[in-house]
Amino acid sequence: MKISKKILSLAVVAGVAFSSLSGVASPVLAEKEEENPEIKNVIFLVGDGMGVSYTSVYRYFSDSKESKFVEQTGFDPYLVGQQMTYPEDPEENITDSASAATAMSAGVKTYNNGIAVDNDGSEVKTVLERAKELGKSTGLVATSEITHATPASFGAHDHSRHNMNEIADDYYDELVNGEHKIDVLLGGGTDLFDREDRNLIEEFEEDGYSYVTTKEDLFEDDNEQVLGLFANRGLPKLIDRTEETPSLEDMTRSAIDRLNQNEEGFFLMIEGSQIDWAGHDNDIVAAMSEMEDFEGAFNAAIEFAMEDEHTLVVATADHSTGGYSIGADGIYNWFSEPLKAAKRTPDFMAAEIAGGADVEETLAEYIDLELTEEEIQSVKDATETEDTVEIDNAIEKIFDQRSHTGWTTGGHTGEDVPTYAFGPSSERFIGQIENTDNAKIIFDILENGEKDIVIEDKDIVEEEEEADNAEEK
Amino acid sequence: MKISKKILSLAVVAGVAFSSLSGVASPVLAEKEEENPEIKNVIFLVGDGMGVSYTSVYRYFSDSKESKFVEQTGFDPYLVGQQMTYPEDPEENITDSASAATAMSAGVKTYNNGIAVDNDGSEVKTVLERAKELGKSTGLVATSEITHATPASFGAHDHSRHNMNEIADDYYDELVNGEHKIDVLLGGGTDLFDREDRNLIEEFEEDGYSYVTTKEDLFEDDNEQVLGLFANRGLPKLIDRTEETPSLEDMTRSAIDRLNQNEEGFFLMIEGSQIDWAGHDNDIVAAMSEMEDFEGAFNAAIEFAMEDEHTLVVATADHSTGGYSIGADGIYNWFSEPLKAAKRTPDFMAAEIAGGADVEETLAEYIDLELTEEEIQSVKDATETEDTVEIDNAIEKIFDQRSHTGWTTGGHTGEDVPTYAFGPSSERFIGQIENTDNAKIIFDILENGEKDIVIEDKDIVEEEEEADNAEEK
Repeated sequence: MKISKKILSLAVVAGVAFSSLSGVASPVLAEKEEENPEIKNVIFLVGDGMGVSYTSVYRYFSDSKESKFVEQTGFDPYLVGQQMTYPEDPEENITDSASAATAMSAGVKTYNNGIAVDNDGSEVKTVLERAKELGKSTGLVATSEITHATPASFGAHDHSRHNMNEIADDYYDELVNGEHKIDVLLGGGTDLFDREDRNLIEEFEEDGYSYVTTKEDLFEDDNEQVLGLFANRGLPKLIDRTEETPSLEDMTRSAIDRLNQNEEGFFLMIEGSQIDWAGHDNDIVAAMSEMEDFEGAFNAAIEFAMEDEHTLVVATADHSTGGYSIGADGIYNWFSEPLKAAKRTPDFMAAEIAGGADVEETLAEYIDLELTEEEIQSVKDATETEDTVEIDNAIEKIFDQRSHTGWTTGGHTGEDVPTYAFGPSSERFIGQIENTDNAKIIFDILENGEKDIVIEDKDIVEEEEEADNAEEK
Repeated sequence: MKISKKILSLAVVAGVAFSSLSGVASPVLAEKEEENPEIKNVIFLVGDGMGVSYTSVYRYFSDSKESKFVEQTGFDPYLVGQQMTYPEDPEENITDSASAATAMSAGVKTYNNGIAVDNDGSEVKTVLERAKELGKSTGLVATSEITHATPASFGAHDHSRHNMNEIADDYYDELVNGEHKIDVLLGGGTDLFDREDRNLIEEFEEDGYSYVTTKEDLFEDDNEQVLGLFANRGLPKLIDRTEETPSLEDMTRSAIDRLNQNEEGFFLMIEGSQIDWAGHDNDIVAAMSEMEDFEGAFNAAIEFAMEDEHTLVVATADHSTGGYSIGADGIYNWFSEPLKAAKRTPDFMAAEIAGGADVEETLAEYIDLELTEEEIQSVKDATETEDTVEIDNAIEKIFDQRSHTGWTTGGHTGEDVPTYAFGPSSERFIGQIENTDNAKIIFDILENGEKDIVIEDKDIVEEEEEADNAEEK
């Protein structure tokens, strides 16, 4: 015991040492407690589709331009490495969100479309389920339907991500130790819970859950168990939301407040779901909106973990989306100003125009730029098609051209994605890891808390024993 | 002194501790010696244009497909983080290779085009120059002209990267302590050294340098000072080279053998120059060729550093190029087989066809695939233009379409790029860093070797003093 305690304290010295050595290295290593504490809580954040081009450009987008150097984002200080995203799919080698989330939730590579099932279709246990077995509280938070691929892969099992009704059923029906396995469910998807065949909202309420549908409701209620559905399907993008609808940060703070009432701790998964949707749509305005939403949630998680000191925070992406590039067409510039001029997403504007609003007035209302006649005409031309998607594409093109943004696909891409970590055991995520390692490490932490370190060099152990002897004297 | 020694040994324990904690974390932390040794040598490798899409796809390209999991590349075990690449240019915010290399060589952000000069045009001292001042040997190795932007920014000063004659002059004329500042120069660029106005080859030879032009010459000579020029301008791509021309690994091994004869140690910069050129050309076949060339050099550097134990190896990129994506056009697959079928680059084939070779025969000779009639016809059509670039583009398009490769630009892109490090002080590169941090850390290492660690927690220092006292008893 003595040696083990002593060795733990060394891990801490290491933190200090690395930090001082470097002057630039990660505070992951610097901000450790003197004793690496027991881990009570794990907050796992997924920026869906948030490849390195997104995390990089968001830094340039957010920069105040007041200093010569670009300011760091909320994420930057916590970068620890990258993860590989490839699935185990006989047909496809670029992952979807279901396969990637199953890798991160259960430690198992599977086929695209599979929700916490392996390639044989067998259900695989998730870190959320294991946390609940161990008496912890659990939560899922997302800006998509809360039954969408990423949250579903932590809290349900299905051979297909498309079975969102069945996934909602799983959230209610699948019990752990006779109790519901997810205490906090916050996101979109009223249509999936209030259906003709079944009303899961009433069922959850009968079992003691609060049901909330607005930001105000969310913060007025403090029940440890809550179902919050803030849209029929996905939430509006952050910059399109009204005051009624919570931000991802709002949902995160409310979830943590509720879950933290359990002395056994909690597991919470938070998804910035629509970074990916913006990528699929090749919409850089929406991408920045959703990066901001996700950063707010990440910052709230870090803030809690810094105070709590027993919380591990991990943030990463499941894949990148859109083949998005900072710079395009041979230009060595990328401009954030045109994107900051957008008060709503192109989707929002296109919907208004498709609904009969005047093109020129709509663009003038929501884009704080002097548009050229050609730009306005390009949207007018698109309106002739009576296809909202074409109108949306025309507006997006204005932003792409003004910012020098490039895209290669409406789907996903296969490059490694960044990993961020903070808190006790954050060093376990350093380097190049497999997406399955996220679950493997979290399972291990759930079983063992902060592991005793096995010292491999006998001399060092002896040195430490001498130190302990010295202390006893 | 006692405390300092003791503290040093702690940094080591840290290495062991982190490694054991994680099970997956970087061997950077695992493979440290018991005493963090003095750093004699620094090998700095730049994969020009090697963004995360390149390092990721090269893993999938190289994978043997024998196991369920993808095998790691030579780089993967050493990933420590990412660096930001933005320049300090009044006109452009996506970097070129000159500005990025100046950041990495001198610790100064400057304008695109500037070779080791700051925004005022003042020359800034590089880590290569400082190493030479301190009595170390120095070397530059590249597959471009050895006077190209990246090596130039370590060994010369010029307001413009385009002045490659003047840069070659700098290599000869700029002395440190009365001696030539670069002992080993290996790459391309005979045209820049053997000119009408000046023959720098003869001048170097008169001063005792060997001059070599083939792989055989290179390995037969063991002079500590050598000028090796293996092409009039850039070297052919690895898969286009004949036996006469060395690989980047060959040049790296020869450079290390020569430089390592100096007991004071050495600084060596190695550039995989043409990953970037392949990116500009949107040529994924050439990109894989040049990644393989660069990996060979990196592996040779790691092999030396593992044996030597006093060598820091750092590898990174200056920026990414081409807006290259793994996957395109909505397809969730990327295929390596079509690229492995190429025995030469599209450039090589296009040059033969432009020189009069038969289209069908040339494609059949160099591409081990059953091409469709449409594919063959597309190259025939391009031949009608009598433009080699069009022929090249037509051949590249076959590989892009078969592999599902996307591109957005013929220029550079602004996302963060991966950083790899091994050896003493490699932990100083962990996390999210500025490109200028590379130079700052290396300058610091050159001045101080392995720095004494400043312990910030007084209790820990006291604990260590107790330990020392215990040892004295």
